[in-house]
Amino acid sequence: MTLQPQRTIDELKELRALTGDENGAQRVAFTETWAKARNWFKEKLAGLPVEYEVDEAGNAWVTLRGQSDKEMLMGGHIDSVPNGGWLDGCLNVMGALEVLRRIAGEGTPPVTVRVVDWADEEGARFGRSLFGSSACSGTMNPDELRDLKDKEGIRLVDAIAQYGINLDTAKQSHKQIKNAKAYLELHIEQGPVLLDMDLPLGVVLGTFGVERHAIRFTGQAAHSGSTPMNRRRDALGGVSKLHLEIREIGKRHGGVCTVGRVVTQPGIVTAVVGQADMTLDQRHLDADALAAMYREAHEASLRIAKEENIEVEWSKLWDIHPILFHPDLIEMCDEAIRETAGVVHRLPSGPLHDAAEVARAGVPTIMVFVQSLHGISHNKIEDTKEEHIAMSVQALDKLATKTMQWIAAQ
Amino acid sequence: MTLQPQRTIDELKELRALTGDENGAQRVAFTETWAKARNWFKEKLAGLPVEYEVDEAGNAWVTLRGQSDKEMLMGGHIDSVPNGGWLDGCLNVMGALEVLRRIAGEGTPPVTVRVVDWADEEGARFGRSLFGSSACSGTMNPDELRDLKDKEGIRLVDAIAQYGINLDTAKQSHKQIKNAKAYLELHIEQGPVLLDMDLPLGVVLGTFGVERHAIRFTGQAAHSGSTPMNRRRDALGGVSKLHLEIREIGKRHGGVCTVGRVVTQPGIVTAVVGQADMTLDQRHLDADALAAMYREAHEASLRIAKEENIEVEWSKLWDIHPILFHPDLIEMCDEAIRETAGVVHRLPSGPLHDAAEVARAGVPTIMVFVQSLHGISHNKIEDTKEEHIAMSVQALDKLATKTMQWIAAQ
Repeated sequence: MTLQPQRTIDELKELRALTGDENGAQRVAFTETWAKARNWFKEKLAGLPVEYEVDEAGNAWVTLRGQSDKEMLMGGHIDSVPNGGWLDGCLNVMGALEVLRRIAGEGTPPVTVRVVDWADEEGARFGRSLFGSSACSGTMNPDELRDLKDKEGIRLVDAIAQYGINLDTAKQSHKQIKNAKAYLELHIEQGPVLLDMDLPLGVVLGTFGVERHAIRFTGQAAHSGSTPMNRRRDALGGVSKLHLEIREIGKRHGGVCTVGRVVTQPGIVTAVVGQADMTLDQRHLDADALAAMYREAHEASLRIAKEENIEVEWSKLWDIHPILFHPDLIEMCDEAIRETAGVVHRLPSGPLHDAAEVARAGVPTIMVFVQSLHGISHNKIEDTKEEHIAMSVQALDKLATKTMQWIAAQ
Repeated sequence: MTLQPQRTIDELKELRALTGDENGAQRVAFTETWAKARNWFKEKLAGLPVEYEVDEAGNAWVTLRGQSDKEMLMGGHIDSVPNGGWLDGCLNVMGALEVLRRIAGEGTPPVTVRVVDWADEEGARFGRSLFGSSACSGTMNPDELRDLKDKEGIRLVDAIAQYGINLDTAKQSHKQIKNAKAYLELHIEQGPVLLDMDLPLGVVLGTFGVERHAIRFTGQAAHSGSTPMNRRRDALGGVSKLHLEIREIGKRHGGVCTVGRVVTQPGIVTAVVGQADMTLDQRHLDADALAAMYREAHEASLRIAKEENIEVEWSKLWDIHPILFHPDLIEMCDEAIRETAGVVHRLPSGPLHDAAEVARAGVPTIMVFVQSLHGISHNKIEDTKEEHIAMSVQALDKLATKTMQWIAAQ
C-alpha cells in the first residue's frame, strides 16, 4: 500500500465542508461542531487494524500495535479557533492518519504507532490553550482552570463534563505516554519565514521561550491647552519610547518583541495622558538571549521613565522557557525533508504547540513546518499550496520510517 | 463705597458650601444645583440699583444703567464641570459683582455696566461647550446641537426647555451685545505658567487656535510569535513615532501638541497591532505657526507611514482660528495689573473661554488670569491663594475704571 497524499488533501476539504462556514473553520473544542469532526475522523478508521480510545483529558488515541511496546506518536488537533483556517491542527491529524494507513498496509510495524488528536489545543473558548496535551504532560494545574468561564458564562468544568472529562482526573492521561519514544508533529508554519525563502518545508528547532508583561507608566493628566510642553509628565511618552526601543532589542538579538495593546487614561483628546498601559511579549529560542531581551527592555523602561519624569511599574503576565526539540530527530527530519523537497531550512516556532508539552514531558520530539501562504493563520484566508501539503505528508512519512528504525535500534 | 475683595472670597466659599460636595463643585448647567446657584446669585443683587434678566439662550444679565447706552460687560459662568473646582467660572461672576457694587456705590457711571453669567460654558453634560456665549455671538449652529443627548439619554433640547430655552430662538440673545463696547473676563489660569513664574496675575493675549484630528495607521495584524521583526507592518510604530515627533514640533514652534488617546486593534498581547488610532490636538496663538505645526505633523505622518510600510489616514475633528484680544485693552490690563501687583506677564490662553466668543462677535475683549496652585483645574484640588484672589478682584476693578473712561472717550 502506498502513501496517497492527495487523499489527505481531499479529506481536509471534506472536513472543511462538514465543519466550516463562509467565515472559516468552526471546530471550537467542546462544542457540537468539534464533536462532529471527531466522529467523522473516527469513521475514517473503519477497516484499519487499530484501536481507538479517548483518555481522561479528552485526547483521542488511535493505536496500531507493533512488534514492540515502544511507541512512536504522531499528533495534532482537530479543534480550531472560531473563523479559523482549514489546516491549523487538522493537517497534522489527517497527515498522520495517512502515514498510519501506509504503515498498517505493510503489516505489523517494528514499534507501536499511535496518532493522537489533542483536546482543545487552541483554548479559544476558555482562554487556556494546550488543555489536553498539558494534562498529558503533567504541567497542567487544575486549580488554574477551575474557575474559567466562556463569554456566555458557562464554566469550563461544566463544558468538559459534557464530553466525559473531569478536571480532577484529567492528568491520568499521563499514562498514555509512558511508552512513548518519539513524537512527530506536522503543522502549518503560521508565519512568513518559509514563504519569504520560497521553501515548502522546514525543520522546527523548538518553541520560543516567552516573557509576557504588563507595563504601566504613570505621569500627570493635564489640560492639552494650558500645560506648556516643558511642564508635562506625559505617560504616553514612556510607551512610545519603550515601544520603539523593544523593536530594536528584538532585532538585535534575533528574537521577536511585540507591544500588542496600549490603553491611555483619561484617554480624551484634550488631556495629556496621565496613565498609559502597554503589553510586552518577547520570544526567543535561546534562554540567555531571552533573558537579555527582558533585561534590556526593563533597563530601557527605567531610563525612559527618568527622562520623562514619570513612573514605571512592571507586572508579569506569563513566562515559559524555550523548549528545544531532540537533536537526533532534528537530523532525521532534515534528511526526510531534503529527500522530499531537495532543500530544507531550520527555524524556531514562535507559537506554542502541543509538541512543546510533549517535549516538556521528556519525550523526544520534532515538528515539521509547511509553508503558509500570506504568512497568516487563525483566519479563513489561511492557506497552503496543495503541492506543498502533499510534500508535507511525504516528508512526515519518510520521517516516520526513520524514527521507527531509530526507536527499534534503542 | 470701597471695593471689598474679601467679600468675594467669602461669597465664593458660601457658594462652594451651597453647591459643592466632598468631590468638588457640582454646578453642571441645566441641573437643579446650577439653578440653585443662580438663585443664590440673584439674591445677592438685592438693594443694588440694577435690572436682572435671563435672555433667550439662558444667559443671566445684571444691568447698571449709566449716563450712556454704551456698555462695558464683565462676564463669567457659574456652571462647573462635575467634581469641579471652586473658582473656575464663578470667580468671574462674583469678582465682577464686587466691581459692580463699587461702581454703583459711586453713583451713575459714565457708561452702562453689565455683568453676564453665561449659560453652560463647560458643556459638561452634552459635550458642547460655550452654549450661551456662542448663541449670543452668533457662531452657534443649532442643527449641530439638536440631537445631542446626555449619558442618561436625555436630549439637550428637552433639558434646556426646562429652563425656558428654545434652541431655535436662542440666537436672539445676540441683541444683548449690540451696545457692548468692551468685555472683561477674570479667570483662574488653569495652567502652571504664572505658578512657575511666581506671579499672581497675567494679561491674556488671546485664545489659542486649535487643530484637532483623528489619525489612523493601518498595518497588518500578525502573530507575535511567528512573525519576524523584518516582516511586520506594525501600525503602532506609526503612533509611537508620530507622538514623539509632534512633541518636538510643539516645542519648536512654542505651541502645544498633544496625543491624548491611543486605541490598538486587535489589541491583544499576542498580536502585532494591525490598526492604531490616535488623537492629535495642536494649539498656538499665531495662525501661521499653527498652520506650520499642522503641516509638519501631517508631513511627518506620511514619512513615518512610508518607513513603517503602513497606511495613514487623517480626519479632522474640529478646528478654530486663534482669537486675539484688543490691543488697547491689553495695554490697560497690563497697567491695571502693574498697579495692583507691581509686576505682570502676558500669556496666551490654552483653553477656550466665553471671552473668545465675545471677541469673535467683534466686541473688544480682554481677560485677566490669576495664578492656579498646582496648575490644575477641572478638579476639586483646583485652588488659588486668597491673597491672589483679592488681587485679581482689585486688578479687575482698576481695569474696569480704565475701560469705562476708554469707552466714554470714544
